[in-house]
Amino acid sequence: MINKTKSHTFEILAEDSKSQARRGVLQTAHGSLETPCFFPVGTAGTVKTLSPDELVAAGVQGILANSYHLYLRPGLDVLRSAGGLHKFMNWNRPILTDSGGYQVFSLANLKRVEDEGVLFQSHIDGSYHFLTPAKVIEIQRAIGSDLMMPLDLCAPYPTTYAQAKEWHEQTLLWAAEARLEQEQQPFLYGHPQELWGIVQGSTFEDLRRESASELVAMNFPGYAIGGLAVGEPRAIFLEIVELCAELLPEEMPRYLMGVGTPADLLDAVALGMDFFDCVLPTRVGRGGSAFTWKGRLSVKAAHEKEAFIPIDLDCPCYTCRNFTRAYLRHLFVAEELLALRLVSLHNLHFYQELMARMRGRIADGTFSVWKSEIQQILREVESGEQVANNATE
Amino acid sequence: MINKTKSHTFEILAEDSKSQARRGVLQTAHGSLETPCFFPVGTAGTVKTLSPDELVAAGVQGILANSYHLYLRPGLDVLRSAGGLHKFMNWNRPILTDSGGYQVFSLANLKRVEDEGVLFQSHIDGSYHFLTPAKVIEIQRAIGSDLMMPLDLCAPYPTTYAQAKEWHEQTLLWAAEARLEQEQQPFLYGHPQELWGIVQGSTFEDLRRESASELVAMNFPGYAIGGLAVGEPRAIFLEIVELCAELLPEEMPRYLMGVGTPADLLDAVALGMDFFDCVLPTRVGRGGSAFTWKGRLSVKAAHEKEAFIPIDLDCPCYTCRNFTRAYLRHLFVAEELLALRLVSLHNLHFYQELMARMRGRIADGTFSVWKSEIQQILREVESGEQVANNATE
Repeated sequence: MINKTKSHTFEILAEDSKSQARRGVLQTAHGSLETPCFFPVGTAGTVKTLSPDELVAAGVQGILANSYHLYLRPGLDVLRSAGGLHKFMNWNRPILTDSGGYQVFSLANLKRVEDEGVLFQSHIDGSYHFLTPAKVIEIQRAIGSDLMMPLDLCAPYPTTYAQAKEWHEQTLLWAAEARLEQEQQPFLYGHPQELWGIVQGSTFEDLRRESASELVAMNFPGYAIGGLAVGEPRAIFLEIVELCAELLPEEMPRYLMGVGTPADLLDAVALGMDFFDCVLPTRVGRGGSAFTWKGRLSVKAAHEKEAFIPIDLDCPCYTCRNFTRAYLRHLFVAEELLALRLVSLHNLHFYQELMARMRGRIADGTFSVWKSEIQQILREVESGEQVANNATE
Repeated sequence: MINKTKSHTFEILAEDSKSQARRGVLQTAHGSLETPCFFPVGTAGTVKTLSPDELVAAGVQGILANSYHLYLRPGLDVLRSAGGLHKFMNWNRPILTDSGGYQVFSLANLKRVEDEGVLFQSHIDGSYHFLTPAKVIEIQRAIGSDLMMPLDLCAPYPTTYAQAKEWHEQTLLWAAEARLEQEQQPFLYGHPQELWGIVQGSTFEDLRRESASELVAMNFPGYAIGGLAVGEPRAIFLEIVELCAELLPEEMPRYLMGVGTPADLLDAVALGMDFFDCVLPTRVGRGGSAFTWKGRLSVKAAHEKEAFIPIDLDCPCYTCRNFTRAYLRHLFVAEELLALRLVSLHNLHFYQELMARMRGRIADGTFSVWKSEIQQILREVESGEQVANNATE
């Protein structure tokens, strides 16, 4: 059976009247994803420190896995023998994979960009590898992800117009190659895998327009927006998100890669984004920083030493139901690994709760009013923050 | 209310006819402990990498916590404000504490042994501390452990007769002081705490005899055997365990500190020991070594790369129900913390299952036959092994 079935069903269930926010649901071979939807990052086939059961308990609908990392370790042979990543890591919900391109630029030692692909050296052992659009599809087929991304070139910020143009054009060519490769291949594990297009073009409006319109012409079943959250000012970030949302078809899912803080998610949803992934909740959780509805707090702070209250009194997560800030602080001070688990778990729960509340507010028509209220509180502690997207834990 | 109630109830339920093994139950303020009983080590108020829920799921009846570590971090003020360690770490089952003496010798920088106590420097910040028998009771009262140990001096192996004699005599004096201190203090958290005696005397039979008979004259509600598993040959280890069992009252619980491998536990139970603690299952678990009924295996081994079977097909633990050796190996290779959790969890489950099987075999009269069968298999991979007891993770 050739993988001509490109589109899972995306259905928009409700739209906010005062913003571009929408609530929807995407059907995949591993169940449905209610949008707006946030994927935690499971770089190497595990969301750092947490078990699949804990992810489910935190309300996680799907995870993002990194093609670059899984290609290097455990490698495609093991993934194929295992029957794909779902079975390998015992995760039965949807998996989204990136193209690996970002890691080649951010983590590996990039040697050369050619028309055919990118040559890089592994960050693990220095071995040489050449990623082509077809190879990236092969990797994601071995992973068996529900949502795949084509090889792309993500320009840093700032970059020249010439560089941004060259890479966006190469990204378009590779998107077409990836699409062709994917259509020629049978399902590896008996379930469909969907390939989305990635809009690039840095902060240049005309390039973004060209990128989006060319991809839309290829009729992808979903669109990712890449090349943002790489250090650009927040106002520019929001402008480009808004522009991309206008350029992409209303009825198709939109995925803003590598974003972000709670305030970023609220703004991006208001601009019409549906999917997100970010290392933020787990990474800062491992550093002792916990998200709450009153802003972020550090459980490592000296004044939490005898704080015999949970991170958030109203939070129903395992961490908040069972442990105090004083205990969490002690675990961090004593360098106990349980600390990393417990705050990561709380933060993922917070993120899922944030997305669930957004869905509820969109559905009942109160999104915009609620958003400005909650964002005012959350922004107080996050003003000026910009999280670099490296999509790798 | 003064803590004159020294004894929780220990009841012997069954005795093996072909060995000294016995099955019993000890009542504590935090529930009963079925013996033979193994306590995992929760050094700093957490069994490394694992949550209390996971310990319960693994069948753990009680844990050992380290007085030395908890005294330094989080310190007695925090423990008292928290209402004791049970509440602090959210563990509602029994807690056993050591005296801290062992860590002063093995981990801290010991400065001086005086008649009044030991002067040492913290391994964390170099600060000076003086532990006395009364101070060690104060620490354990702040912790609120169900079973407490008096300050003791554990001779290294090998040691001179003169040294062993001097330290064993000091240990006896301190046991009496600790006992007096404990009897004069009210319950701190409203529940009784029991103080046991520790038999010392290194590998010298007459010293062990003297130590045991003096302690028994003090009529402790339970007896620990210290100073073993510190590097002595296995034959000597077993001889001293056997001797101590003979010297201690039949009707009182016996605790062999810092032991050991599955083969050690089987032998020691056959010699009449009831309680054990050891870092082994969690420490080697974090190193990728898993216990099974066919011996130990390393999930990091290259030949496990495509082993899509659990550590043990018959094991009902969370790890074996959900993950393959190939996945565990990948997690270790990728240095993912989930690896440490999953193998620790399996190993604790194995240890609890081992103790449960011993209890069952003692109850149905088949302990000795079963022991020699199972030990033959387990010994194959553990011959010559001697685990140093440092009782600290």
